[in-house]
Amino acid sequence: MSEEIAKQSKEKNSAMNTKNPSLGWMIVFLFVVSFLGLFSVVPLRKIMVIDFKLIYPSGTATAHLINSFHTPRGAKLAKKQVKTLGKFFSFSFLWGFFQWFFTGGDNCGFASFPTLGLKAFENRFYFDFSATYVGVGMICPYLINVSLLVGTILSWGIMWPLINDKKGDWYPADLKSSDLHGLQGYRVFIAIAMILGDGLYNFIKVLGRTLFGLYHQFNQQKIQSDIPVTGNSSPDLPSISYDEQKRVRLFLKDEIPTWIAIVGYLTIAIISAATLPHIFHQLKWYYIATIYIFAPALAFCNAYGAGLTDWSLASTYGKLAIFIIGAWAGSSNGGVLAGLAACGVMMNIVSTASDLMQDFKTGYMTLSSPRSMFVSQVIGTAMGCIISPCVFWLFYKAFDNLGISGSDYPAPNALIYRNIAILGVEGFSALPDKCLTLCYIFFGFAIFVNGIRDAVGKKRASFIPIPMAMAIPFYIGGYFAIDMCVGSLILFIWSRINRAKAAAFGPAVASGLICGDGIWTLPSSILALAGVNPPICMKFLSRSTNIRVDKFLSL
Amino acid sequence: MSEEIAKQSKEKNSAMNTKNPSLGWMIVFLFVVSFLGLFSVVPLRKIMVIDFKLIYPSGTATAHLINSFHTPRGAKLAKKQVKTLGKFFSFSFLWGFFQWFFTGGDNCGFASFPTLGLKAFENRFYFDFSATYVGVGMICPYLINVSLLVGTILSWGIMWPLINDKKGDWYPADLKSSDLHGLQGYRVFIAIAMILGDGLYNFIKVLGRTLFGLYHQFNQQKIQSDIPVTGNSSPDLPSISYDEQKRVRLFLKDEIPTWIAIVGYLTIAIISAATLPHIFHQLKWYYIATIYIFAPALAFCNAYGAGLTDWSLASTYGKLAIFIIGAWAGSSNGGVLAGLAACGVMMNIVSTASDLMQDFKTGYMTLSSPRSMFVSQVIGTAMGCIISPCVFWLFYKAFDNLGISGSDYPAPNALIYRNIAILGVEGFSALPDKCLTLCYIFFGFAIFVNGIRDAVGKKRASFIPIPMAMAIPFYIGGYFAIDMCVGSLILFIWSRINRAKAAAFGPAVASGLICGDGIWTLPSSILALAGVNPPICMKFLSRSTNIRVDKFLSL
Repeated sequence: MSEEIAKQSKEKNSAMNTKNPSLGWMIVFLFVVSFLGLFSVVPLRKIMVIDFKLIYPSGTATAHLINSFHTPRGAKLAKKQVKTLGKFFSFSFLWGFFQWFFTGGDNCGFASFPTLGLKAFENRFYFDFSATYVGVGMICPYLINVSLLVGTILSWGIMWPLINDKKGDWYPADLKSSDLHGLQGYRVFIAIAMILGDGLYNFIKVLGRTLFGLYHQFNQQKIQSDIPVTGNSSPDLPSISYDEQKRVRLFLKDEIPTWIAIVGYLTIAIISAATLPHIFHQLKWYYIATIYIFAPALAFCNAYGAGLTDWSLASTYGKLAIFIIGAWAGSSNGGVLAGLAACGVMMNIVSTASDLMQDFKTGYMTLSSPRSMFVSQVIGTAMGCIISPCVFWLFYKAFDNLGISGSDYPAPNALIYRNIAILGVEGFSALPDKCLTLCYIFFGFAIFVNGIRDAVGKKRASFIPIPMAMAIPFYIGGYFAIDMCVGSLILFIWSRINRAKAAAFGPAVASGLICGDGIWTLPSSILALAGVNPPICMKFLSRSTNIRVDKFLSL
Repeated sequence: MSEEIAKQSKEKNSAMNTKNPSLGWMIVFLFVVSFLGLFSVVPLRKIMVIDFKLIYPSGTATAHLINSFHTPRGAKLAKKQVKTLGKFFSFSFLWGFFQWFFTGGDNCGFASFPTLGLKAFENRFYFDFSATYVGVGMICPYLINVSLLVGTILSWGIMWPLINDKKGDWYPADLKSSDLHGLQGYRVFIAIAMILGDGLYNFIKVLGRTLFGLYHQFNQQKIQSDIPVTGNSSPDLPSISYDEQKRVRLFLKDEIPTWIAIVGYLTIAIISAATLPHIFHQLKWYYIATIYIFAPALAFCNAYGAGLTDWSLASTYGKLAIFIIGAWAGSSNGGVLAGLAACGVMMNIVSTASDLMQDFKTGYMTLSSPRSMFVSQVIGTAMGCIISPCVFWLFYKAFDNLGISGSDYPAPNALIYRNIAILGVEGFSALPDKCLTLCYIFFGFAIFVNGIRDAVGKKRASFIPIPMAMAIPFYIGGYFAIDMCVGSLILFIWSRINRAKAAAFGPAVASGLICGDGIWTLPSSILALAGVNPPICMKFLSRSTNIRVDKFLSL
């Protein structure tokens, strides 16, 4: 939002559309916004974790890690599982460390290994050796991974190349590949449409069922104490194990009453709708109210998607908010800044929602009290609201050229978001040709597929891909889907060789892989902060480029 | 030897020192030379394979592969072994195929992966992901692999850097790294000295023992029918299994009488000593006689070394021959050409010796008749003598610029060998400073270590490295030693987890790895001949170079 960034973009640089950062308003902004996510997600907790039995791979992995520290002595199987987890944790950590050495530059290292050829790599179709996603793939059901792969093939394999052929016809040919006016626009908005379609379908289904349940309850004055097994993505579990029963009981015991959540949400919404226009006078109170009406639905979508696939698409929802609020406010009324502020609000809500749900899943697996988890989340959020602006302020003051491209901290996202906002104020007409039509089609497609999945019954539904999972690679690319399918494949082969062992040790292996890689990010960021750069770049060049480079280097 | 090549080197280009290839003399040359290796090695057969129990990793692996095709039905363990072999064979083949895609250029691909950092890579100290050498490492005893590693550390870790520091003092500083006048000279000649020391020690030991045995036999008029377990590198085998007994019996049954070998060797030596001076009039008959006197000893050394480590160092012995014969003939008498011709003779003998011994080992493992193997070798050699000059002739006529650097077939070795020969005619004085002294020291060191190994007894000897194995990385570099140690490590860990399984399946895994990679060379050479080049270059650049390259590419 700052003037510095605005200068780098060519349009809409009026004072109306810029606001320089300052410590005070940032902290206030975060305080009035951040807690909304927490409250919005609390009522969904039971639906997501117990009814839908969503996976939340990272949350599950963390839970396995935590549980491993508290294994009772004498439990032989558990001990072995812990050992397995430890082994794969170390392996994954060391693998992350090893990879680090070869990432000395952009597009270097294993993460850009064109495993399936350069052509496939250009279409983001490669195996990137990420231990995390292999682990996630091992935890996720096969259906999810297959859905991701189907989505990848549909989008990057068929649709994007076809749309790319229309270059110059549907959209100007001279755009950069990351320009939302071009191919990237199709990617982002079609993915959003599909995710919204799936998310809304499920949201409405849950809402309907809840209302129906409430109506039933009022009629019969009877408290349902059995656990309804609902939802389309719940795996077939004919009987619930003792562990599971205990978890459900504890998870439901320390209930956070729904009315607290609703009252909390409304209170904060009112406070923030009153405060925010004072910070960003371009952001009118009715924009904020609108955001807050739709936010729970989007938070639900995101938490649901993250539960299925481990990807939080907060930034995607943020872009949607930029686009819609920006278009509504219009260019002349400071729509750019309004869009960016709305994006901040939306991302905050949506990402805390999915994060919190991950944590609830961890809590569920580790038999933690959800109420105490919620309280710690509130404390943690409050701390974050103060600490993160301060850290930003430190960087902002210490490095003059923060956000200037080419400097040490170029903050490229700042410019990207600003450009999205500039696009947004031009409204839907700014979208490339046929994009909106395609969005409608895929929105309908998502609802249609979900309808079919519910109609054919649980058994046959397990052969129909989930639209939410299909949509994620639309925008991100297929590499993580391939990682996850590799994970699936490993588990599948393992199950074929020894079903009992795979069932007992699969989650431990997966958790080890996920957590080891995750923990490695800690030392790796410390190294990055300390200015220690990896020494080697593992580069992949086509043969012809390589000949040119060799010639250049021998000069 | 051709004028074309000679033109590229600056010195000694007189007609005396060149000879253009022609189909006729090449075939004759090969015929009078190639069979010598076969005969020279036949008497050593029993010593190498049965007494020394040398490993010959490739030969052993091939034997496992062949045996796997003839596994009797119903043998459960054998079937499982075959399955394991098949799995690792496919894995290794596919791995080779996968690696191929990334080798589109010099120093590209996994074979130049600076696994242990760029600094270590410069000193040829890295893991090159070669399935072959990992497999070889699994078959070789730990002692060999450790010896290789010790040799690597001693040479590339300590000696070469130290000698490199003397650059400008001990040898001119402006030489290319591959120049024998410089560091490369130390590498090659110290390695040769050490190998010769070890080889001669063992040759003399065997000779002494044989003479002693003959003397004994004459005295007692008794045929020894038991199998003497001798040699310093035989693993501890308290009892010989049934398989082993059967193999020994069959291997010794179809005896090729020693007198045939000796008579054959002498006959061919005389014929070739009479013929060769007519082809190369610079090569006097007494040079040839000298070569033929020493050749069996060197053939023994090479076959012994190959048995230990799977590396045939024929080219090293060839260089020795160039050097000595070249120096003896002197520059004015066409020493360059004499040296090159002598090199051809020597390499032929020495490499057929080690190849044949590998095959004898395979034959021994597969219960083939050694006599029929010998006959097939003779037929094969005769065919090779005709076919390979014809193939060369085809290339020579089809491509005008064969051997010209920068062309499709630059034949860089041609120039290198010619340069060695040019160095050779200048005699020992051409060697860099202190090189000869170091050679004497290491020659003595090799004999000394072998003496100690024999003196301390078999048990303690297994902690003393073998000089022959130590010398090989001196010249080649440490990467294959690291591969082999990785193989050892895998086997070691496997043995710790499950000793019985490791013992039963280790050789199958290793054979699968070796053979799969080996078979891959066949399609890979077909691809190369068909002009299909790998599409991608996996390059490793230091961070600073990478920045330059990125800048260059973005131009």
